[in-house]
Amino acid sequence: MQHKWKYWVHVTKLDPDKTLPAGTLADVATSGTDALMLSGTMNVTRENLRSLLSQVKPYDLPVVVEPSSPESALSDGISYLFVPSVINSTDVQWVVGKHRDWILHYPVEWDLVVPEAYIVLNPNSAVGKVTRASCSLSAKEVAAYTTCADRYFHFPIVYIEYSGMYGDPAVVRAASEVVDNAILFYGGGINTPQRAAEMAKYADTIVVGNAVYEKGGVLLRETVRAVQ
Amino acid sequence: MQHKWKYWVHVTKLDPDKTLPAGTLADVATSGTDALMLSGTMNVTRENLRSLLSQVKPYDLPVVVEPSSPESALSDGISYLFVPSVINSTDVQWVVGKHRDWILHYPVEWDLVVPEAYIVLNPNSAVGKVTRASCSLSAKEVAAYTTCADRYFHFPIVYIEYSGMYGDPAVVRAASEVVDNAILFYGGGINTPQRAAEMAKYADTIVVGNAVYEKGGVLLRETVRAVQ
Repeated sequence: MQHKWKYWVHVTKLDPDKTLPAGTLADVATSGTDALMLSGTMNVTRENLRSLLSQVKPYDLPVVVEPSSPESALSDGISYLFVPSVINSTDVQWVVGKHRDWILHYPVEWDLVVPEAYIVLNPNSAVGKVTRASCSLSAKEVAAYTTCADRYFHFPIVYIEYSGMYGDPAVVRAASEVVDNAILFYGGGINTPQRAAEMAKYADTIVVGNAVYEKGGVLLRETVRAVQ
Repeated sequence: MQHKWKYWVHVTKLDPDKTLPAGTLADVATSGTDALMLSGTMNVTRENLRSLLSQVKPYDLPVVVEPSSPESALSDGISYLFVPSVINSTDVQWVVGKHRDWILHYPVEWDLVVPEAYIVLNPNSAVGKVTRASCSLSAKEVAAYTTCADRYFHFPIVYIEYSGMYGDPAVVRAASEVVDNAILFYGGGINTPQRAAEMAKYADTIVVGNAVYEKGGVLLRETVRAVQ
């Protein structure tokens, strides 16, 4: 189990603060997606996270919790806890501070923890605003952050996050060209199989989120087929 | 060569901005210290660093450069480049920003790089001021930073730095109790063999700096004997 996540090519991100249309979760589970990632920036509570966890539990898919705060770092019955650090944030709390507080105040199941270096590139997204990320980066600067995350901090995952907006493939390509050991994730605006295929040329793993809420399980299955 | 630094118990830190009394460098080289670390916070230039490098070159000791800026990350003819990140800084540039700039603008010899997580605890030191480090930390908070550096960021070195001031052994002990894979360095105010021995009970490696300039090579030899 330990490193199975390294072989995922398609991950579906579900937001504890949003409600899926009836039947969509069953479609998601049979779409061929490799894993479910429970993650949100706004209004994630232990309650709505627990509720979503109980909804996804019956399906036979790995479940990842990606906490946005120490409070939402629940690890009961999940496969992995993907813990992000926003390395292009201008506020140290999103790089290292919340992590220190988490360790200080909660028990940590290190066997489940997979550290993720986020590079957040949409300044108008909730995650861009909340983390005060420095989003105006050239492809070369994103590549430098990628190398720093990979070779200096030894993050096993570098995650290029355009959150809600389709990104620049040239930026993702630049990151893919320098990555050494890390697995490269891409997320943001994947709402057609063409976009899924385009980003999958450069990223090891693509993450589909909003499109599931907007277009449902059929579109999800198409994005899976596009990257397999 | 690759991991020899893990076995060092005593390191001598030399500042490119300071001048050693005549003969002291020969005393340092024969003191039994395991390595020379060339490092300073203020007024380190490529010129004074190169000058110090040429002075230490004739001696048969490993030489480490610990840059305080991308400009001073010289790696010609040295054993290792120890690259610090001040993880209790309140300014992201000292955690990750300078590292990104270094990668962006200079060629990096990754084979020589050993990442260090600094926890800076003397607010009145140059390094404490320049990096705007959050120094008022309890032993538990230092332990939480240590765990974060070690288990989340996978730093091979956690460096507790009291820079110019003798630290609290209880704080270093707290860090030593939680450290998992990292090697624990301690530096600050070691100017007697007693202090060397006390901190070496908890730290894997102690670093002696100012005392060499103030008290010379004889004291250095005594601190080496105290920890061997």
